[in-house]
Amino acid sequence: MKIAILGHGVVGSGTREILEERGFTVKKILEKREIPEIKDRITDDFDEIISDEEIKIVVETIGGLEPAHTFAVKTLKAKKHFVTSNKFLMSEYFGELVSLAEENGVSVRFGASAGGGIPWIHNLSRCAKTDEITEICGIMNGTTNYILDAMERKGISFSDALKTAQSLGYAERDPSADVDGYDVARKVALSVAAGFGKIIKTEDIPTFSLKAVSLKDMAYIKEKTGRSIRYKGFAKDLIGGVSAFVEPTLVKAESLESRVSENGNLITLIGKNTGRLSFFGQGAGKYPTGDTVALDVVGVAEGEGFSHIGRKVFEVKNDGIKRKYYIRTSSPAVFPYIATEEERQNERYIFTDLISVSDIHKIYEETLGKNAFIAGVEE
Amino acid sequence: MKIAILGHGVVGSGTREILEERGFTVKKILEKREIPEIKDRITDDFDEIISDEEIKIVVETIGGLEPAHTFAVKTLKAKKHFVTSNKFLMSEYFGELVSLAEENGVSVRFGASAGGGIPWIHNLSRCAKTDEITEICGIMNGTTNYILDAMERKGISFSDALKTAQSLGYAERDPSADVDGYDVARKVALSVAAGFGKIIKTEDIPTFSLKAVSLKDMAYIKEKTGRSIRYKGFAKDLIGGVSAFVEPTLVKAESLESRVSENGNLITLIGKNTGRLSFFGQGAGKYPTGDTVALDVVGVAEGEGFSHIGRKVFEVKNDGIKRKYYIRTSSPAVFPYIATEEERQNERYIFTDLISVSDIHKIYEETLGKNAFIAGVEE
Repeated sequence: MKIAILGHGVVGSGTREILEERGFTVKKILEKREIPEIKDRITDDFDEIISDEEIKIVVETIGGLEPAHTFAVKTLKAKKHFVTSNKFLMSEYFGELVSLAEENGVSVRFGASAGGGIPWIHNLSRCAKTDEITEICGIMNGTTNYILDAMERKGISFSDALKTAQSLGYAERDPSADVDGYDVARKVALSVAAGFGKIIKTEDIPTFSLKAVSLKDMAYIKEKTGRSIRYKGFAKDLIGGVSAFVEPTLVKAESLESRVSENGNLITLIGKNTGRLSFFGQGAGKYPTGDTVALDVVGVAEGEGFSHIGRKVFEVKNDGIKRKYYIRTSSPAVFPYIATEEERQNERYIFTDLISVSDIHKIYEETLGKNAFIAGVEE
Repeated sequence: MKIAILGHGVVGSGTREILEERGFTVKKILEKREIPEIKDRITDDFDEIISDEEIKIVVETIGGLEPAHTFAVKTLKAKKHFVTSNKFLMSEYFGELVSLAEENGVSVRFGASAGGGIPWIHNLSRCAKTDEITEICGIMNGTTNYILDAMERKGISFSDALKTAQSLGYAERDPSADVDGYDVARKVALSVAAGFGKIIKTEDIPTFSLKAVSLKDMAYIKEKTGRSIRYKGFAKDLIGGVSAFVEPTLVKAESLESRVSENGNLITLIGKNTGRLSFFGQGAGKYPTGDTVALDVVGVAEGEGFSHIGRKVFEVKNDGIKRKYYIRTSSPAVFPYIATEEERQNERYIFTDLISVSDIHKIYEETLGKNAFIAGVEE
């Protein structure tokens, strides 16, 4: 089974090196740049790959929606397996690509699109073969974890921590996908597909941004609760729907999450048989992510089963899920559910009683506004 | 593919329920007791199972060496797949059973024999397909973790914590396999087989017992280092051998291990590509362990590849692995490597400099004797 790789960037080159070390043949690489070490195999013509009968697996590591989507569709229609690390592509076109793969008798694999170097999607899908996965949650974004850890342990500000994350190559120049939670929301949607067998739309998943977090929050929370802040995604399987949301979260000092430092990820599934199962590792990086892509290629080559995949779109329903919240706001707005409130330097520090995820988002949008920092309080 | 289960105890019955819920047929169950709900399928005659052409997979959850070993050999020679949760059997007869399986074109699976409900052996073996696993370590025994956690958080003595563990069904009446480290040593040997592709003998793996640990140690260690004690197994792949040992370990307050409470397990592999990958979950229990066994059955039924398995016996070599140690002893013996020493109530509290694992065992056996408590100090 010969392989083509679309894009020879960080993940693509890592994947190629790992596969070649294990004896796989990467016959063609789609890449516009000139790269001396692979120059005999580079092409900028995708049709050359599609028409090559020897190539049975196409690995896509370009990222973004186009041309990745066009390439994915053409690959599957040409009855070649499609392996990708692209969370944009998969969270947008999950149903279409999975159906196309089925129609054409080939596989779609997206193990590296959530969790990076952690074999998360693989284990979710595997667990679902014998267990009923009821919940998914965790730290799924290394950039925001790096920022929170640096703020907490080094006492530096959000913006300084973000700058360091950018200089280390963790954060993009436009960090909004990370700090506003869209990156985590995409990974939640993909985890839901693999673990619950349901499709949800990323834009239906509400997020509280991390942008408003400050050292004041960390100090107040530490003083009152001894807890740390982590940026977490959540999903719970419901009858006829899925609860899913992304929010800064006050994790207990005795939790595993509180010990996740730097850009580490820690993702958890809860199964009826298995109970709580957590996976810690590198959520990104050339070789960790490349390794996960390479394992998908090996799985396809070995004919590994991967059947438990969502095909139908379900609604995101957060009105039945109740949590307590921490709120820091300068708004004088009055709203129900306040359990404790304290004023410090013209800002209100609030802990709420139990309130549904839907309601807290309503309160945020209707009365508190952008400057408020809101975080869930883990039970 | 019809299935037989040998032994309808805790794990066997859990496995049966899970498999049946997923549509698998458990045709025969080897069991001496009368169990009304399965009475039409119970037999006490193993040959009835072996001679049944419809039964393609035999699941063994009896435990112990005999008759499990005889059953395993007969199963494989009858060209049926063999799935087991039996760490005694697998750590003693690994090479023989794997070779027999190969000769007869069938599989041996032992996923639940280390890690219980954690998909540890599966992921080790899977990771090894694309990565070079260099180290394995972790909390692999729930009983000893329960004891250490109860001592640390509730301030109760070792013997009281052990009694509670026994009353909860975690610890056996004879707890020596747990507290002297043989249980962990067996799991280390099986992890080495799946992760490094090498066989080592359990009796070659040196262990420091947990029995001598006391609240005095916890108080002293907390005061001097802020650390917790966990009981950990270790293995490192070496050229021409394997380093492997089991010892109480001073883990850092910022480590994931320090947050593993109750009878939780947390096991880590380090891969050249993947980096550090940790798995947390339930190391025992009817449904967690039954689920892991059931997943092995599904894997066999789906024809999943599982090739990276040790076949050759390697030596355990610990003379090149250096660590620092904590020692509490009433022995006046003089020995090198002491970094700091303090006397409290006629006992010496010692932290050593770096010393090889072989040398600390020599010092223990030759000069310190049974009453000393020794624990590795993690870097």
